[in-house]
Amino acid sequence: MDAAGPVNLSTRFTRALNVRYPIVSAPMAFAAGGALAAAVSRAGGLGLIGGGYGEAAWLEEQFALTHGEPVGVGFITWSLHRSASLLSEVLKYHPRAVMLSFGDPRPFVDAIRGAGALLICQCQNMEHVEQALDVSADVVVAQGAEAGGHGALRGTVTLVPEAADFIAAYSPQTLLLAAGGIADGRGLAAALMLGADGVLVGTRLWASREALVAERHHLSMLAANGDDTLRTHVPDIVRQLPWPAEFTARIRRNAFTERWHGREQELAGHAAVEGPRYRQALAEGDPENAAVWFGEAAGLIQSIEPAAAIVEQMIGEATLQLQRHGGASLD
Amino acid sequence: MDAAGPVNLSTRFTRALNVRYPIVSAPMAFAAGGALAAAVSRAGGLGLIGGGYGEAAWLEEQFALTHGEPVGVGFITWSLHRSASLLSEVLKYHPRAVMLSFGDPRPFVDAIRGAGALLICQCQNMEHVEQALDVSADVVVAQGAEAGGHGALRGTVTLVPEAADFIAAYSPQTLLLAAGGIADGRGLAAALMLGADGVLVGTRLWASREALVAERHHLSMLAANGDDTLRTHVPDIVRQLPWPAEFTARIRRNAFTERWHGREQELAGHAAVEGPRYRQALAEGDPENAAVWFGEAAGLIQSIEPAAAIVEQMIGEATLQLQRHGGASLD
Repeated sequence: MDAAGPVNLSTRFTRALNVRYPIVSAPMAFAAGGALAAAVSRAGGLGLIGGGYGEAAWLEEQFALTHGEPVGVGFITWSLHRSASLLSEVLKYHPRAVMLSFGDPRPFVDAIRGAGALLICQCQNMEHVEQALDVSADVVVAQGAEAGGHGALRGTVTLVPEAADFIAAYSPQTLLLAAGGIADGRGLAAALMLGADGVLVGTRLWASREALVAERHHLSMLAANGDDTLRTHVPDIVRQLPWPAEFTARIRRNAFTERWHGREQELAGHAAVEGPRYRQALAEGDPENAAVWFGEAAGLIQSIEPAAAIVEQMIGEATLQLQRHGGASLD
Repeated sequence: MDAAGPVNLSTRFTRALNVRYPIVSAPMAFAAGGALAAAVSRAGGLGLIGGGYGEAAWLEEQFALTHGEPVGVGFITWSLHRSASLLSEVLKYHPRAVMLSFGDPRPFVDAIRGAGALLICQCQNMEHVEQALDVSADVVVAQGAEAGGHGALRGTVTLVPEAADFIAAYSPQTLLLAAGGIADGRGLAAALMLGADGVLVGTRLWASREALVAERHHLSMLAANGDDTLRTHVPDIVRQLPWPAEFTARIRRNAFTERWHGREQELAGHAAVEGPRYRQALAEGDPENAAVWFGEAAGLIQSIEPAAAIVEQMIGEATLQLQRHGGASLD
């Protein structure tokens, strides 16, 4: 970075939140605990703990692990509808922000604002973006289907600029983050070109030392390229989780998906047998017989690193890429 | 552009092909005729005629309409396998480049090189990229599933940088274009950040005056946003075209897709009745009962323009976007 001068990747997002870098870690269920969220915030971004399906005791532990570093938390919205007290319990930890994904945010908005937390709404299509502006979200995350884990069918490269145009027309103070397939400085620079104010990073931080991920799951991702994932309902069926049909999970292709993807009804019928089998494989860190949660960006990741190193590398690479191409000539 | 200085968006692609702008028009079957291809080349990019399913007489007409402007041509590779003499007939028009998409390029490589045309291979995943390097393609197009028309399941934002890394490692002289959802200067600038040397543009040029598209199809796209398309096999089933199962078509959601998507086997059984009905609707320019071929980028397009204006606008916007964000600070 020497020749390029000091790194100062400030955007509307960094200025509004008073953080150094426009990078937010995705609140990945089970994988994004307090250590990861705190590491990302300490590195200059904003870390989010994965509230997942809502276990109050686990969340208490994870917030304790942040040692006062300001972090936020994310919830699966339809699941939060089922455990109404959880949000108020978690708001006691004073999260910097609460991100809601996959469902109607309206019942939770007042409590979040009342606690002084920023409201982040993750959106998979333009209909969701409209809903997010209806509740005056502070931050919209436009998530493309490249993402690991749950998502839907729009691509990042079209959803981000379309959301940017919509926000500019109807709610220009709302901030916009791009998500889905953003794993390095090239993706961050591209997101800024598309009109985002920053990025939400899942898969690249799933592949960090702080993520709560079994070692064999990490190794299976390092061996994968971006073709080695698919979108499917099978992990939700085997876990008997009532996910809305519009959302699929992007996971690694493995023995489990080879066996059941395309045979969803049969799997549902066998959940009593297959459920315990799945949980056993998960507990053992078996990367073949349980879902392994990463996205297409796997093809861009060659190593498991500390989260702080990942953030610094993304910022450095994005800055160089922008400087290289900045100005009237691209030579 | 005055304050920003002269526009000079040169890349490895523009220098290798000696063209002004790193923009190639997609060889959209039926829609991309000689007038569109010539207009794009005249504007400083490279236009490609859509060879589609291969009608020699139509292609002769379209090349005549270019009035000597250098253009290329694109074929659906599996279809070209069925009409072997077509390629040699078309090579007589001295296309600048031949693009092969959706199938094994090997049988055609020698003839294309022998005629002095550049070989462009369109790729939907990393397996296709490997195949393209195996035949020493001059240009690889990394096409994300956001694209209108046929494609597959990778997203542009991950496929482009992964292809760039692979090309850098194994065939650094090969050029890389990004395709799928690139419809404005933001998309072009993002593609360059991701490591592409330029872009292949479909949907935005489908929405040009020169494209061979029924007016009501154009109007239905102007009314659409990016959520209004889907990937489906139904237009290929009703036309009884033997598309490989891995490729779906992204088209507008309309009465035809509402009726048949999810009922593919039934449609196949009714092709004798539904085929003529479909062709009739197509001939009448009916946007509800035949496929309307555009991609997710529809949400970024507000008007039908001459192709030259579209190219200039993309270049101007990309240049401004790069200048605005260039340098050490993104302020």
